Amino acid sequence: MTKNPLLVPEIKEFLSKNNTEAIKEFCSSTHPGLVAEFISPLSPKEIWDVLKILDPDLRAEIFSHLDLDLQIKLTQNLSRQELAQLISEMSPDDRVDLLKKLPEDLRENLLPAIAQAEREDIRKLSSYPEGTAGSVMTSDYATLPPNITAKEAIERLRREAPDKETIYYCYVVDDERRLLGFVSLKDLILARPDTLIKDIMNRDLIYAHVLDDQEEVARKIQKYDLIALPVVNGNNALVGIITYDDAMDIITQEHTEDMEKLMAITGEHEAAAYMKTPAIEHFKNRCGWLIFLALLGFVSGFVVERFEHVIMQFTILATFMPMLADTGGNTGSQSATLVIRALALGEITPRDFLKVLYKEFNISLLLGVILALVALVRVYFYALTNPTQHIPLSKIGLAVSVALALQVITSTLIGALLPLLAAKFKKDPAVIASPALTTIVDITGLFIFFTTAKTILGI
Amino acid sequence: MTKNPLLVPEIKEFLSKNNTEAIKEFCSSTHPGLVAEFISPLSPKEIWDVLKILDPDLRAEIFSHLDLDLQIKLTQNLSRQELAQLISEMSPDDRVDLLKKLPEDLRENLLPAIAQAEREDIRKLSSYPEGTAGSVMTSDYATLPPNITAKEAIERLRREAPDKETIYYCYVVDDERRLLGFVSLKDLILARPDTLIKDIMNRDLIYAHVLDDQEEVARKIQKYDLIALPVVNGNNALVGIITYDDAMDIITQEHTEDMEKLMAITGEHEAAAYMKTPAIEHFKNRCGWLIFLALLGFVSGFVVERFEHVIMQFTILATFMPMLADTGGNTGSQSATLVIRALALGEITPRDFLKVLYKEFNISLLLGVILALVALVRVYFYALTNPTQHIPLSKIGLAVSVALALQVITSTLIGALLPLLAAKFKKDPAVIASPALTTIVDITGLFIFFTTAKTILGI
Repeated sequence: MTKNPLLVPEIKEFLSKNNTEAIKEFCSSTHPGLVAEFISPLSPKEIWDVLKILDPDLRAEIFSHLDLDLQIKLTQNLSRQELAQLISEMSPDDRVDLLKKLPEDLRENLLPAIAQAEREDIRKLSSYPEGTAGSVMTSDYATLPPNITAKEAIERLRREAPDKETIYYCYVVDDERRLLGFVSLKDLILARPDTLIKDIMNRDLIYAHVLDDQEEVARKIQKYDLIALPVVNGNNALVGIITYDDAMDIITQEHTEDMEKLMAITGEHEAAAYMKTPAIEHFKNRCGWLIFLALLGFVSGFVVERFEHVIMQFTILATFMPMLADTGGNTGSQSATLVIRALALGEITPRDFLKVLYKEFNISLLLGVILALVALVRVYFYALTNPTQHIPLSKIGLAVSVALALQVITSTLIGALLPLLAAKFKKDPAVIASPALTTIVDITGLFIFFTTAKTILGI
Repeated sequence: MTKNPLLVPEIKEFLSKNNTEAIKEFCSSTHPGLVAEFISPLSPKEIWDVLKILDPDLRAEIFSHLDLDLQIKLTQNLSRQELAQLISEMSPDDRVDLLKKLPEDLRENLLPAIAQAEREDIRKLSSYPEGTAGSVMTSDYATLPPNITAKEAIERLRREAPDKETIYYCYVVDDERRLLGFVSLKDLILARPDTLIKDIMNRDLIYAHVLDDQEEVARKIQKYDLIALPVVNGNNALVGIITYDDAMDIITQEHTEDMEKLMAITGEHEAAAYMKTPAIEHFKNRCGWLIFLALLGFVSGFVVERFEHVIMQFTILATFMPMLADTGGNTGSQSATLVIRALALGEITPRDFLKVLYKEFNISLLLGVILALVALVRVYFYALTNPTQHIPLSKIGLAVSVALALQVITSTLIGALLPLLAAKFKKDPAVIASPALTTIVDITGLFIFFTTAKTILGI
């Protein structure tokens, strides 16, 4: 896919021949993300051998593109001085991510070796709770005063640009750093050189507060097609920006979490790296809910136990139990998934409660009827293959069909209801895991099944 | 969240008072996405009353931010001339999305009213199959020849910029439009004015082919933090770009599809709008798999039927059926979800087959042991509450525990195996829906359960 398919063995060759020129040439003419990919398979020592001959800013950029785990491994081979320099050159948000993962004593040891301004910045950025806009923003943005001209602004950006995460959006602030508006670099290029910034800036600011939820902020960036979104504190002062690429990563991370929650998998997913997570960690993330659900599953057992006499009389009913339970779980999980996703994308809110339930009720009626027909056909085939049995097959058919239809309707409604309730009480709707739902509708389903059967069969 | 909380009633007031100045002022000083949000609740006629007084390019921009369904509704009130003008002003990718949704006769009627160049462009962009890079790219990008200076390039952008989707990345092409490299606007601003483009351009091009899968392309944009990715045809000629905001929408759309597939929901999800999709459509998307799985669920019934004599002898075994089936479904769905997600994010590939299975096997051993213990405790309680029953409880306990452990291990492995196999045969791993898996491991689980019980109980 790339025009420069230099292979890892070649880099190794350059290293062994001490061909620093070739390495420098490759690293500076290739996207840092690609360089990071190429050198990742090397040993930590070899990776550092490549990085240390580069300019500090390019080194930090490539380093930032490495996996966080690999970054941490690399830090172990560095002197305090090397590490402090590397961290100083990294972008504010990336270095805070790394520092948070370093052992506390190393971090404490390291901070004094970092310049005052950066230290201050690190302290500020690390102070916001995980999951908030503050915890993912960067402090590397370009600001402009309102009273300079477009030409002066471009001059200023030219001086400051190499240090900034993006100069495509520049934020206009007053003396107290209060946000007044923003200009895009496109606006600046298009404007007459002597126009004042305040006359071309956009005042229709879309911004976030430091404590806003990171997912909401990412969705806002997506909704309005922004390259960056400014973040303000309680005094309406600009304290950071979140860029589109961070928004993409947040969206992907949140999606992974939603999918795992849906399957009742717990745990952190910052670096949701399947292979790197040890088996015991996977076990811990999965076993909690499984054990709880297995215990809850015993309630189904109690229901079966209670109706043991019904099964004794008509063992054919037992053969329908798995299908009935599965179908309930399936229909419930479907409606839950659609409602969870629609809530996540902001297509519906908890206020649409009744509308959603009404819609799901209509859908479940259609599903109930068609699946009841399927069950009827099955009983008919049973009758064909077991012609000698003396059981009231038409009544059994009726009982199974009615029970299945009722099961589909209740499961669908429960599936839609639980995430809506969770959202209403400000919980993440995705906590309504599909396995939990399956287990719950198993219990209600078996109860419906045996009660219906008893009534229709007159036991 | 926004500084300009003008409310819908006010717009209505402006409209009724014919206060076009106020409307113009509001629409031009507010983000087009926000304007679209504000006017969406109005009637189609009112929306057009607002839009028609605006400049054609702003009108097209706000219109593009409306939901596709609303766009289609609006087109019904427009004259052929109005619609042709609107479509001409829209960005190439947005207008193709709209045209594809219009009734064929309207589209055919409309095209002659659109200028030759745009018509040609529409024809080209609509020719790529859905889901490919070609189908989501836009043809509105800035190109530069290699032999002009940075100063000349900025001049040129200044002239062309208002028409382009982005000028932050400019693509350098030769006379045959073959892609040579790209320069960012930041590079241009930073370069000395007399530097030649070819001397500052990045040659480490990351690009896509028109027929590449849209999700792969979006992931590439995410991975390398790109603002736009160039798309080339078979002759290596530049034919379009895909911008970061489209990549975000593709990623979100693919997430929704993955989640719905995981719950065995079919159908299109371009405008995955829960409330707008009619109940009958929801029903169609869900019922296919449900019916198939209900039929498959009957196989579980056959297994139960085959072992009817075992249940007759020890009805206590029937009380464990639901828990056993659920736990199998849960463990299988968990491993399937993790593997599907890891495949989607590129953390693992089908070549990691054995490594993944080995990992899941280890995890399933741990899960099997702990869940078997839970089952043992349950049988123990059964013994306490049913002291008079003459059944070999220690053997039942052993049978249930062993069966549950075996069920957990096989389900986990099947859950991991199926998506890996799908990926190996170039199918989307997400087709291994959790409901299908639940139904499959129900069948294997019941078989394991009764076989184990028969063996241990010596029936």
